[in-house]
Amino acid sequence: MTTQATEEISHPTEEIAHPERAEIELGAVLHALSDSVRLRIVAALAEGDAEHTCGSFDVPVTKSTCTHHFKILREAGVIHQRHEGTARLNTLRRDDLEARFPGLLETILQSAPRRVTR
Amino acid sequence: MTTQATEEISHPTEEIAHPERAEIELGAVLHALSDSVRLRIVAALAEGDAEHTCGSFDVPVTKSTCTHHFKILREAGVIHQRHEGTARLNTLRRDDLEARFPGLLETILQSAPRRVTR
Repeated sequence: MTTQATEEISHPTEEIAHPERAEIELGAVLHALSDSVRLRIVAALAEGDAEHTCGSFDVPVTKSTCTHHFKILREAGVIHQRHEGTARLNTLRRDDLEARFPGLLETILQSAPRRVTR
Repeated sequence: MTTQATEEISHPTEEIAHPERAEIELGAVLHALSDSVRLRIVAALAEGDAEHTCGSFDVPVTKSTCTHHFKILREAGVIHQRHEGTARLNTLRRDDLEARFPGLLETILQSAPRRVTR
């Protein structure tokens, strides 16, 4: 038995729970986007269709805190996460958000300060 | 000296602080609107230009909790409050929000569940 696991490394065999499209709540989405770090993450994800790991974002927080932010985004239905090895790859649930709350994501991103870097 | 004051009654001589338009932050606005009660209050305020007291909203919370919600909305720059006697009259800062974050308020209100009553 190894002890290499840290709190940042997820359990690859564990299924990651996501809300269904119809279960996505406006309040949870707004709360998820009300944090500047999470908003920057979402803005970076919105720039392309690529999948990103937590470590690929230039945000001023520890990896553990970043992981926490991704959990809030996932539970709100804003992003989708999947395992690849010990990494979690993240994508924006743009279609689901657009179907549920037309124009919302785009309007919020347009209102966000332009400070996004990768 | 009377002891009629309760926590719900504000101090009419105290000035109510509001952020300037340029100080209104996206994160604070999204947080303010992420609560279903506050969103219902804002939706009701958006229906007309009239001023409303806390007690005029049909929301399932105590007056004290309602007062707390109005404080968060005011500090975020979403509403303006002014004294009239012992009451606080509330109006939506629609123009300030529109100037700061074009389309945001309208898009969020369109996404909100239609449960607003007075």
